[in-house]
Amino acid sequence: MAYELYYWDGLQGRGEFVRLALEEAQADYVDVTRGPEQDGLGTGAMMALLDSRSEPHPPYAPPFLKDGDLIVPQTANILFYLGPKLGLAPKDEGLRYVANGLQLTIADLVTEAHDTHHPISGNLYYEDQKDEAKARASDFIQHRIPKFMHYFERVLLQNPDGHKRHMVGDALSYVDLSMFQIVEGLRYAFPKATKHFADHYPHVVALHDAVAKRPNIAAYAASGRRIPFNESGIFRHYPELDKAVR
Amino acid sequence: MAYELYYWDGLQGRGEFVRLALEEAQADYVDVTRGPEQDGLGTGAMMALLDSRSEPHPPYAPPFLKDGDLIVPQTANILFYLGPKLGLAPKDEGLRYVANGLQLTIADLVTEAHDTHHPISGNLYYEDQKDEAKARASDFIQHRIPKFMHYFERVLLQNPDGHKRHMVGDALSYVDLSMFQIVEGLRYAFPKATKHFADHYPHVVALHDAVAKRPNIAAYAASGRRIPFNESGIFRHYPELDKAVR
Repeated sequence: MAYELYYWDGLQGRGEFVRLALEEAQADYVDVTRGPEQDGLGTGAMMALLDSRSEPHPPYAPPFLKDGDLIVPQTANILFYLGPKLGLAPKDEGLRYVANGLQLTIADLVTEAHDTHHPISGNLYYEDQKDEAKARASDFIQHRIPKFMHYFERVLLQNPDGHKRHMVGDALSYVDLSMFQIVEGLRYAFPKATKHFADHYPHVVALHDAVAKRPNIAAYAASGRRIPFNESGIFRHYPELDKAVR
Repeated sequence: MAYELYYWDGLQGRGEFVRLALEEAQADYVDVTRGPEQDGLGTGAMMALLDSRSEPHPPYAPPFLKDGDLIVPQTANILFYLGPKLGLAPKDEGLRYVANGLQLTIADLVTEAHDTHHPISGNLYYEDQKDEAKARASDFIQHRIPKFMHYFERVLLQNPDGHKRHMVGDALSYVDLSMFQIVEGLRYAFPKATKHFADHYPHVVALHDAVAKRPNIAAYAASGRRIPFNESGIFRHYPELDKAVR
């Protein structure tokens, strides 16, 4: 039976980390909200599950995955669940917790990237918190991006099995795919701030480039199925929030 | 061999979610930064691991757990790892992912609670972002606390195995212990906003009360080992950020 991925229609957002794993593995999946209503798909199908008063284990928010009767919510949790099934997790049990720890650190970065444009409230428009967004984005560019990226660079260098090419273990994992997405997203949102990424974080950028060239990822990018970045997503390009750094 | 828990000294913070599980299970553990330097403990021991250039899998930030050679970072990941070993996770494999999804939603709430006092930057003092903190805390109290708490109440009511007493499965899990800590923390930080919690979220509060009465948790609270809430932690009581809600 196909996996069912539930996520907001029209944006990459957190769902994209899951899509990249499903696409790399050529897994059979349905992107539920992007399907037709007459087939029981669409956003209504997702809202019905989110609002259900009878579902034994209702999710709090998208993305969530449905595998038969089991609903698995939260991006990192979905990837932890899918990783071994898709051949995208380390074989070693201990390293799977290392992978999950890295994925949760990536999730923290994603939340901070989101909060650059919504530092006060997700219930207010960006325009209504623009000054605060400028302050938070400035801190993110100056302090947070370097702290996370230096760490990820170090993870690649210190991974004893990865030959500086994999975040964990000696083969491609979902964490590598997520690192690709982090570089893509930060470059889209902050082209000035990320201009010298390849100089500062050469192994992270090399990993990004290697993932981009993988046949299934390249085919996915060319297919039209990958929604372009836009200003409904997590990574948004507001030029006034971007700035050059050395 | 004893588990080694690494977390900032002097605050409950995210480490407390792990401590509650270890204490409930009466596990053998060392709270590393709170131990004496002459025994190789203390904050220096934690910083050495965080800054290590040779550790195969360095953590990004505390808390992290060391179990032999394995370092497991990130609160939810530590609990996912420890849960089965401590008898605090569901026996059913699928339900373990449900538990992890709940714990990650709790982690999201914890991050938002932190950001009420630091909405712009963790590198600035609270006093330097007080106006923004007031705006974010107001949104948190009005919109976010109710959204999370209604959800958790619903999880208790819809859990088919829990008789409205457990978040997942038919027995106590680390998720229940974390819910206790959420109620404790929100009540400490926002006494006015949480005044009617028992009316609005009766099953969540009943779960909190049941956990508080468990012998090992009560003994831990009475032992002096549980650091009191304070304004270095995640849940901080700044009266100007609190406000009454109906």
